[in-house]
This record gives sequence, C-alpha cells and structure tokens, in this order.
Amino acid sequence: MNRIERVLERLKGEGISQMLITDKMSIFYLTGVFVEPGERFLGLYINDGGAKTLIVNRLFSVPDTDCQVVWLRDTDSVSQAVAGLADNSSPLGVDKQCPARFLLPIRDAMPRCRLLLASQCVDWVRAVKEPEEQEKMIRASEINDLVMGETAAYIHEGCTEKEVADYLVSRYYAHGCEGISFEPIVSFGANAADPHHMPDNTVVRKGDCIVVDIGCLKDGYCSDMTRTFFFKEAPEEYTAIHDLVRRANEKAESMIRPGVRLCDIDTAARDTITEAGYGEFFTHRLGHFIGMEVHEYGDVSAAFDNTVREGMCFSCEPGVYLPGRFGVRVEDLVLVTADGCRVLNSYPKIWQVIGQDK
Amino acid sequence: MNRIERVLERLKGEGISQMLITDKMSIFYLTGVFVEPGERFLGLYINDGGAKTLIVNRLFSVPDTDCQVVWLRDTDSVSQAVAGLADNSSPLGVDKQCPARFLLPIRDAMPRCRLLLASQCVDWVRAVKEPEEQEKMIRASEINDLVMGETAAYIHEGCTEKEVADYLVSRYYAHGCEGISFEPIVSFGANAADPHHMPDNTVVRKGDCIVVDIGCLKDGYCSDMTRTFFFKEAPEEYTAIHDLVRRANEKAESMIRPGVRLCDIDTAARDTITEAGYGEFFTHRLGHFIGMEVHEYGDVSAAFDNTVREGMCFSCEPGVYLPGRFGVRVEDLVLVTADGCRVLNSYPKIWQVIGQDK
Repeated sequence: MNRIERVLERLKGEGISQMLITDKMSIFYLTGVFVEPGERFLGLYINDGGAKTLIVNRLFSVPDTDCQVVWLRDTDSVSQAVAGLADNSSPLGVDKQCPARFLLPIRDAMPRCRLLLASQCVDWVRAVKEPEEQEKMIRASEINDLVMGETAAYIHEGCTEKEVADYLVSRYYAHGCEGISFEPIVSFGANAADPHHMPDNTVVRKGDCIVVDIGCLKDGYCSDMTRTFFFKEAPEEYTAIHDLVRRANEKAESMIRPGVRLCDIDTAARDTITEAGYGEFFTHRLGHFIGMEVHEYGDVSAAFDNTVREGMCFSCEPGVYLPGRFGVRVEDLVLVTADGCRVLNSYPKIWQVIGQDK
Repeated sequence: MNRIERVLERLKGEGISQMLITDKMSIFYLTGVFVEPGERFLGLYINDGGAKTLIVNRLFSVPDTDCQVVWLRDTDSVSQAVAGLADNSSPLGVDKQCPARFLLPIRDAMPRCRLLLASQCVDWVRAVKEPEEQEKMIRASEINDLVMGETAAYIHEGCTEKEVADYLVSRYYAHGCEGISFEPIVSFGANAADPHHMPDNTVVRKGDCIVVDIGCLKDGYCSDMTRTFFFKEAPEEYTAIHDLVRRANEKAESMIRPGVRLCDIDTAARDTITEAGYGEFFTHRLGHFIGMEVHEYGDVSAAFDNTVREGMCFSCEPGVYLPGRFGVRVEDLVLVTADGCRVLNSYPKIWQVIGQDK
C-alpha cells in the first residue's frame, strides 16, 4: 500500500471516507509536492474513490504531480473550493493544524457535513518510517555523533555558549547537511537547569556541566541528541545525578520493542529517577517522535498509551534540572526494529570531563 | 477605553458577548503576558461581564497579571477548561489561527455553543496604533532609514548578497535594535525578479539593480522598507521602470487619509503601473499592515474594502518584476494621521547609482 492508501485505510477504521489535509509537511509526505503557503491556504483533498486534489494559491508553483490541482486567486473562496470537491453529506476528516479562519468558513459552506479531527490517520502513518526513510534517519544521526565528538573536542577555556553553537553548526555544513533540525542548545553550569536555555555569551568555567542538545537536517530528515559533559572537573554530586539519568535512559531503551506502550517507557525512566529522589526535577516528557520534522506527532509520555510499532522513531531523553544550579540530559534517538530497537546514537553517554590541558 | 474594552465593543457590534483568543501576540497585546506555547494550548477568555482568564500550561511561567489563570497539565483537557469558563449557550468568538485540534474538541464539548470567527474584532483594534505605539513605529523606521544609508554606502565591488545582508543586520544591533523583523532581502540583477529571493553568494556586477528590503525590531515594533539601487551604472530601460514604480508609490501615498478604502489605494498604484504597460509584472498586493509583527492582519489590496482610520500603519510597496532580467520595488511604511498620512521612511526613493569609485 502506498502512503495515501495507508491513510485511507486508517480513515476507514474511523468510519471516514474523505479527508482534507492542510499540514504542508504531510502534503509533501503524501504527494511529493512541497509548497510553503505562508498565510495562504494549501490543502490536499483525498477520498476512498481515489480523489487526490491539491488546492493551491496561484502565487505558488507546483512540480509535476499526479494530483489534480485547483488553483485559487487571493480573492477566491477557500471554503467554496473545498465544498466543490467534498461530499457535503458525509463526514470530512481534517488535520490538527487547520486554522479557524479556514475551518469555520468550510463548516458554514457545508452545513450537512460533520468535520472530524482525523490527523492521527496521517500522523501514525508518518510515524512508521519506510526503509528508505530509516536509512536517512540513521545517516542523520551518524553525522550527529560525529559533530558531538567534534564539539566536545572544541570546547576550551574562555569559550562562550554561542561560540560553541556557531562552531557545531559550521561542522554540520562541513559534513554535507542542508541545515540544522533545531537551534542548538549549549548550556553551561546553572544555565543547564533551564531545559530551554538558548546559547548566550556565558563563558565556560571549571566544574561546569555542559548540556549539548543538537541535531542536523540531512536529505530531509532530522537528528536530535543530547550529551552532558563536565569542564575540567566533575563535582561528585553532579556525576552521581548524571549516572542516574543515564541509567534511566538505558532502562527505557532496553524495553523498547513492538507492543510496548509509549506511556510505560516513560514510566520506566521516570520511576528510576523518582526512586532516587529526583522525580520532581524531571519536568518534561521522556521523548517525542521525529522524522522530516524534529517534533512530529506522538509523545513518549503518560498522555500516549499507544503501542510501539516496528519502524517508529522517537527520542529517549530523561533529564534532571536543579534550579539555579545544574542540569543534565542524556538523549538518543531510537528506531524500533522487529524485536527491539536500534539506538541511532553511538557517541558515548557515560559522563566525561572535557577541556583538560593536553 | 482600554484594549480589551475596544475588542468587546467590536464583538458587541457582531452580536457576540464572549471570545476565546489564542494568538500569542494578541494575548500579549491585550494582557501584557507573553508566553511562547509551542505546540501547547494558550488561550485568553474574555466576556462582556468582565471575565479575563488565561488558560496556560503549567510548563510556562506567567508574569504578574490582573488576569485570572487556569493552569493545565499536559494530560488535562483543553476543551473542558474552555467549556468550564464559557457560556455554553451563547456564541463564542474565536480567532483566526486557532487550530482544529483545539477547535473541534471545543465544539464537541459545547454542543449548544456556536463558534464564530471573530478575529477581526481583535485585529482591527491592533491595526489602530496608540500614541506610544506610533512613537515606537516611528523610531524603528528611523533606524531603518539609517541602516539603508549605511547599506548603500557599504555595497562594493566583489561583495555578495549574503555579505550585504550580514553587514546590515550587524548595523541594526549597533543601533540598539533587539533584532530583525524579517530575514533581509538583498537581490542583485536577475535575482531581483523574484520578490522572494533570499540572499546567496551572487556577486554584484556593473549595471545590476539591487533590491534591498529590510526591517528591524526595536522596542517590540517592526520596520520594513525597500529601496532599489543600481551598481556603477543604470540601464535606461530600468531607470524608467524605477521612475514608474516610484511614481506609483507616491501616487498611492498621496491619497492615504482617513475614509479612503484600502482597495482604492491599491488600485491607484496598480493603475499607474498598468497604464505604462507593466501591470502583469506587479504580481503582489500593494501593502500589508504592520506593528508588533511584520505582517499583521489587513492588506492594501483588492480583497480589502475597509476604510482607512487614523493610527493605522501599513506598507506601500509597488514593484515590477521582469522574469530572468530585473526587479524593482519601492516601499515605505505609512502612519495614517487625522488628515493624511506620515510617511515613516525619509531615505530618498529616487533611483541612485551606488558603488562608484570615490
């Protein structure tokens, strides 16, 4: 089955025969057509009769495609275009990001048609990577491993978070990446206690922890990994916490296989940290799905009781954050295999002291 | 009347007594609370009884505020939180960006409540700048004028589009800006024929046109201006088109005053260009509203027959683009006054040859 057929099959399971997809990355995934519509409308209408129609503003160009194309001017009505394609008397699936300014006029244009949230029928198809996609995920993480090593070797007396971030981004380009998958996080010392800290002019100091959370974009697919180092010396209180977080990461990874529930993977890591007394300082989900976008639909958290399937790819990233003092996070990507998982990052995760005089 | 009262007054005119606002910049505008929610929900519920309640995920922090705050965990239901605040039996206004993944569950949680698109009740309030906001718009454009002059002086034999872009961004910081309002456009020669061309390694050549479309962010407000130069020499065919585009810009600006319709301003500029035979090469709207964001709601185009009001601020940016050959755009920001408008950019717009040997 091709990608659209897999989406239609899932829709059928929900009793839906037609869907309007508006997420540009999902449209690219399903049709090979990429359009950045900005504030304008972009839609893909599909149904179980084989319809596959793009609705695109005339300002944009569309490569050769086997989709039908409905072209709109700025003054044309999006809702009339949709109503003209859809079966107005049967439910219409829509995806999660479709904004109210399009959704409510569509509702009004088709009063006998019930709009149903059906993104998951696309998102869970995207979540299971095809073999060629898996190869690209593996390659992006190989480059991430290389750049993590180069970054650890680069960090030196007097350097700032921003300098480290600039350096590592330049390394991605040197390795042939087309870009980064997100703005790199490089946090020294107490800055690391904020999981969202952005690189600034803070200079590294002896005894600092150093959280490096980075990812590249290679051939359209993302990587994402975190390692936490210590600069010149490693305070014992903190290395013990690092060991704990690493064990939580390894514990979670050891149980990933088809059939396990996402929430149970989160619980395994969380329990490890909670039993050591640091549960309240592990403040975020264990992981997120990833692929063409760094955050795709699906969390490894208490909110998702879905079971893991072969080909899924997500992060496993426990952390402990002591406000004003210290933070540590250890993150890999994993790819689910037939009977377990392949951890896509091989860069060592045991704590290391870096920046020592040669 | 304060900002929220002005929104409620507009809502009343539409027969709506309550609204859920989800645009983070609108929430900041109305409450002074800025939260970047990422993929999580952020909402402000207001009604004509004086309710003013933020719905915020516990992951974020909120500064001191006179709003009530409803805190949500990741596992809490957004739609139940909204249903718990709103009057379920009367229409609820929502704003334009509210995504389907929140909107459809809200619809399902309040079956007797009609959801109505009411962004314009917020957007047209935001469109009319208060005196302190006007001062900030003026200041941001003053800096833009300075940097345009510095950029014209900088462009030299052998330089690339990217180098020019990097230089001018550094000048914004030197003038105390907190950032750029959009990625600068610097397009040499045929690159200028694509209004969306991004700076690359193209080197400037004699006779090139140079489109410089730039803006800064200063004290939370945006600037946006375009000038088109010629490098070392100016081909006559192209300077004639530049004169035409500048006249279209001036013609439009000369008619801006309270009571004029936005579409008629667009028409005035478009007719000027069409009468000279270049209408098909003026491929975009004449302008857009601007303020805390570089593109705010409201276009100066055929799609908007709304009338201009004192305090509105928008761009006036006619252009002509000859595919594969040449492009020119002349853009100012204007601020509508009691009896006309103040053009916020004073950098000369008549064509100039730059890069000549001193």
